[in-house]
Amino acid sequence: MLRLHGFAVSNYYNMVKLALLEKGMPFEEVTVYASREEAFLAISPRGKVPVLQCEVGYISETSAILEYVESLGQGPALLPGGAFEQARVRELAKHIELYLELPARACYAQAFFGMQVDAAILAKSREELLAGVDSLKRLGRFAPYVAGDSLTLADLYFLYSIDLAAGVAHKLFEIDLLADLPQARALLERFAGNPNVQRIAADKDAAMGPFMAHMQARFKG
Amino acid sequence: MLRLHGFAVSNYYNMVKLALLEKGMPFEEVTVYASREEAFLAISPRGKVPVLQCEVGYISETSAILEYVESLGQGPALLPGGAFEQARVRELAKHIELYLELPARACYAQAFFGMQVDAAILAKSREELLAGVDSLKRLGRFAPYVAGDSLTLADLYFLYSIDLAAGVAHKLFEIDLLADLPQARALLERFAGNPNVQRIAADKDAAMGPFMAHMQARFKG
Repeated sequence: MLRLHGFAVSNYYNMVKLALLEKGMPFEEVTVYASREEAFLAISPRGKVPVLQCEVGYISETSAILEYVESLGQGPALLPGGAFEQARVRELAKHIELYLELPARACYAQAFFGMQVDAAILAKSREELLAGVDSLKRLGRFAPYVAGDSLTLADLYFLYSIDLAAGVAHKLFEIDLLADLPQARALLERFAGNPNVQRIAADKDAAMGPFMAHMQARFKG
Repeated sequence: MLRLHGFAVSNYYNMVKLALLEKGMPFEEVTVYASREEAFLAISPRGKVPVLQCEVGYISETSAILEYVESLGQGPALLPGGAFEQARVRELAKHIELYLELPARACYAQAFFGMQVDAAILAKSREELLAGVDSLKRLGRFAPYVAGDSLTLADLYFLYSIDLAAGVAHKLFEIDLLADLPQARALLERFAGNPNVQRIAADKDAAMGPFMAHMQARFKG
């Protein structure tokens, strides 16, 4: 059986978890935090989560894991038919990852963990988030899903990136990132009614206490 | 016919160009610089290069373009057979992109264009480059290609990222990024003998003057 290594607060972990749940594929969860401990680097060379353990080995990097899961062909497809339509989904997913999630991530320490992030990094992230949401507005179809009328890989990135990006923009820059994108809010509301999304949210809530304790110990240590 | 939009100095542009040349697929080159001009944003929503124009529309983001080109099934495959082997290639490509190219990119302005990059950004990039090369060492097969015995998508990322990352590490941090990775140097030497790589290098040299003039005008403007 597939084993998903990571922790239920991680947004990338939850992208893969939702893919597996939507496809109805059985999997075990193995709780582990990101670290540079040698035992973990042996399965995740950059020390990040998630990692997917399959019969033949381990796969790190969410985008590689999602393509792998998709290629197994079980459950509903998360890529459309047609090479160009697939390219659109991958393009959207990559835009959300690089231009919304990553600049927000550079600010998580200050937005969510009470630490200080250097002003130059904050300024760069602010500019990137504004350009990123503009590109989402141009590329996103929201009909009602990000790339069209069915749920795709791009929605996983959207769902588990946009809330964090909007949180960073609101807390640190007093910007309403989705002010101009009501269709994105509508999609988030739709997802809030999805039972798999609800399960992931409940698992995240339950995991938050131990995760915050882990982070505090790490920053003190 | 496919049309590749971008400029011959861009490393991401050259990844796609090498894929098309290796596959022997005909394409036209359309020189355009990255910008936030409305006409360009209409085909590249984040204002970046490269963009691939195909009969049905435009695709931005190198990873989406490369998967699209691969899916057309022309010329030698740049992904191996087998879902897990493909995952390995995508994992490697993503590691090189996120953990070597991106942190180096944050320093290009200082390393290559004589501008100043904030010390906090430099310090973060230095740390990320060291972790990134460690992960390449763990994941890379170099047998002799990055992911094994044939040229794959991961090699395109390697070839057009590692030189820039090593350049940044040397110029700004006095680090020899490949000191511990002679197999990476050997692969770069192998690629130096590839006629398509040589053509791309010659095109880059010819394009460097106009590109530097463009950058100078932009930073002055």
